[in-house]
Amino acid sequence: MIVVKGTVSSPKGFMASGIKAGIKKSGRADLALLYSEVPAVAAAAFTTNMFQASPVKVSKDHLKAKEHQAIIVNSGNANCANGRIGDRDALKMTEFIGKALLLDKREVLVASTGIIGVYLPLEKIEKAILELVGELSETKGTRFAEAIMTTDTMKKELAVKVKLGKVTVTVGGACKGVGMIYPFMKTERHATMLCFLTTDAAITKRMLGASLDEAIGDSFNMISVDGDMSTNDSCFIMANGLAENRKINGKGDDYRKFTEALKFVTSELAKKLARDGEGATKFMEISVTGAKDEKDAKVIARKISTSNLLKCAVYGEDPNWGRIVAAAGSSGVNFDPDKVDVYLGSLKALSNGMSVKGLDKEKAHKLFTKRDIHIKVDLKSGLHKATAWTCDFSKEYVAINSEYST
Amino acid sequence: MIVVKGTVSSPKGFMASGIKAGIKKSGRADLALLYSEVPAVAAAAFTTNMFQASPVKVSKDHLKAKEHQAIIVNSGNANCANGRIGDRDALKMTEFIGKALLLDKREVLVASTGIIGVYLPLEKIEKAILELVGELSETKGTRFAEAIMTTDTMKKELAVKVKLGKVTVTVGGACKGVGMIYPFMKTERHATMLCFLTTDAAITKRMLGASLDEAIGDSFNMISVDGDMSTNDSCFIMANGLAENRKINGKGDDYRKFTEALKFVTSELAKKLARDGEGATKFMEISVTGAKDEKDAKVIARKISTSNLLKCAVYGEDPNWGRIVAAAGSSGVNFDPDKVDVYLGSLKALSNGMSVKGLDKEKAHKLFTKRDIHIKVDLKSGLHKATAWTCDFSKEYVAINSEYST
Repeated sequence: MIVVKGTVSSPKGFMASGIKAGIKKSGRADLALLYSEVPAVAAAAFTTNMFQASPVKVSKDHLKAKEHQAIIVNSGNANCANGRIGDRDALKMTEFIGKALLLDKREVLVASTGIIGVYLPLEKIEKAILELVGELSETKGTRFAEAIMTTDTMKKELAVKVKLGKVTVTVGGACKGVGMIYPFMKTERHATMLCFLTTDAAITKRMLGASLDEAIGDSFNMISVDGDMSTNDSCFIMANGLAENRKINGKGDDYRKFTEALKFVTSELAKKLARDGEGATKFMEISVTGAKDEKDAKVIARKISTSNLLKCAVYGEDPNWGRIVAAAGSSGVNFDPDKVDVYLGSLKALSNGMSVKGLDKEKAHKLFTKRDIHIKVDLKSGLHKATAWTCDFSKEYVAINSEYST
Repeated sequence: MIVVKGTVSSPKGFMASGIKAGIKKSGRADLALLYSEVPAVAAAAFTTNMFQASPVKVSKDHLKAKEHQAIIVNSGNANCANGRIGDRDALKMTEFIGKALLLDKREVLVASTGIIGVYLPLEKIEKAILELVGELSETKGTRFAEAIMTTDTMKKELAVKVKLGKVTVTVGGACKGVGMIYPFMKTERHATMLCFLTTDAAITKRMLGASLDEAIGDSFNMISVDGDMSTNDSCFIMANGLAENRKINGKGDDYRKFTEALKFVTSELAKKLARDGEGATKFMEISVTGAKDEKDAKVIARKISTSNLLKCAVYGEDPNWGRIVAAAGSSGVNFDPDKVDVYLGSLKALSNGMSVKGLDKEKAHKLFTKRDIHIKVDLKSGLHKATAWTCDFSKEYVAINSEYST
């Protein structure tokens, strides 16, 4: 597998665009389009929030179609809690694109991110469609990645190439979302995290869904910024088969290689989200090892990653590891506290449930002055492990979310 | 029921004290003692965190005794994650008091709050015991309430009087805890929230436990400051029978009256905690009505009360009710989103799952400029309801928890 300087339009046959439609008050780009020149199979994972935004409802319905060719995305407005009007507006967005690209509306998917409970300025979107379609290009993946941003401070995109037999396939991806980030999606699942993945691999719709599910479970579903789950989280993938590899139709070697590549893309994108979390000054990687099963390890790692107190301590560069212990113990997972070791980087702070006497406080503090902080909790009760990613909790986070309506 | 200007030492036969033992660097009072002149029955509820502080383990064990007469409490050190040394130290605290007051150590309970993973300065506590016991007085409930504080900005205490038959009994209480607050206790349950309740009512140990459980379920277990559950949360009650009412030994009329009084005390104390939450500038009351059962209502109300995004919006006086919707939908409770109404004070923002057109934004904003903010979510699917309390999330919260090791 090779990581390339790529975008969501790197795989063969994909084009993208991103423009300013006037949805955002800031005047930044807010409307984006992803298009496959040929019909592609698609899979997606959505938020499990009971309140689902209208674009989530419409995309879920459209995914019942066999093939898809386009995804339209707006930022600045979540089109959520807008009832039937919102549903109609989301459907209209797919109709606009269908009409312009000569596709059935059911071949078009839709995603939105931004403020909840404000009606969509549909007329602005309608007016911008011609420009949006006109701008479509193989070289504009980055424009797409920029137009889907809300409070993101940087675009998040990536592509990798992987060899399946003698054929090289490409997987590209772009994502956004640095607040209201606590996804738990499955191919039916949560953030406003939006992710768009593309590949020119030939793969069946069923295997694409399975592969996406595996990739998300260890990546997007393991990140947190604020522990707030969105109504709009969506992760889409389209596979158009233009690489002409032998079609993946079962869980064989090619499936495994493809899924590894996809998992790499989603993990790197997920880490970019955590690193760019609203107000973040630090990036934290939390590993839980020695668990009885993987689910336990994931639950504990995620619980630690959502501890406001720990995240404040990290912001203050204070190696207050007691907050790790408190968070781990409150996850609801059963374990023997008298076996647990806690490491700050390579420094052991807790050994068999007891604070380590003579812990080098100076060294511990120094570890916390770095940009990237690694925390490990070893339960010493099994062979399973999991890793979660998050950022610190800063005064800037509070400023961003008290002064800006998202 | 009458609310009196009272303290934890208001019920007949209770004495209290609070002194400076040098555990806190700040030099403030940090050692407290509560004492019943005659043997009392006791009940308690503790954190459900897998990591339980040593005082929690010792108190749980001592509660197996039939009667109790004293509770020793230190602030400034949680005596948690200290393994066998911590267990020995907590036990020693009960032995010191037992020796000084001529009690069996098992008749003495113990609680600690403060930093995790630092060994207790036991010699300082031992040296302070004589002064602590010497200061015991019926008039020093307030000293007790002050000595148990950590980042609290005000003492929290209360007493009520209620008539059982012809006899008036008194219930007193004191509590602390404004950070790491997300209790879920049962008579075996979570915060570092510490609460000490006293009563001169005559009641069996079993009925006292049942009454405490009911009172906690609707009060302490419904508050949140930061969603972080402590390793030390404890709520104790001692009943010494000196009011000479007919002993409560079943769930009759007197039990009901007594429990209502206890529930009032715990609710008022719980609200004081939320109001004094670390960095709080606002107090929020979140009601969920129309739920299919009480548990659903509680889960949703608590989920909303822990939304960092909503709490930031409230800090910024921004009536961003979309964050209420997102939080409610992510609670894991099943409901029909198309039936839901959301109110900000008396202002309806969401009606049958649709944002209300023509919502008076000026009026909504004005509601959010007040100190107390009421939010109601009506599921319109049943007859059950619940109320949760929390505070806003401020830059000061981050400052307190990034600059201070708790």
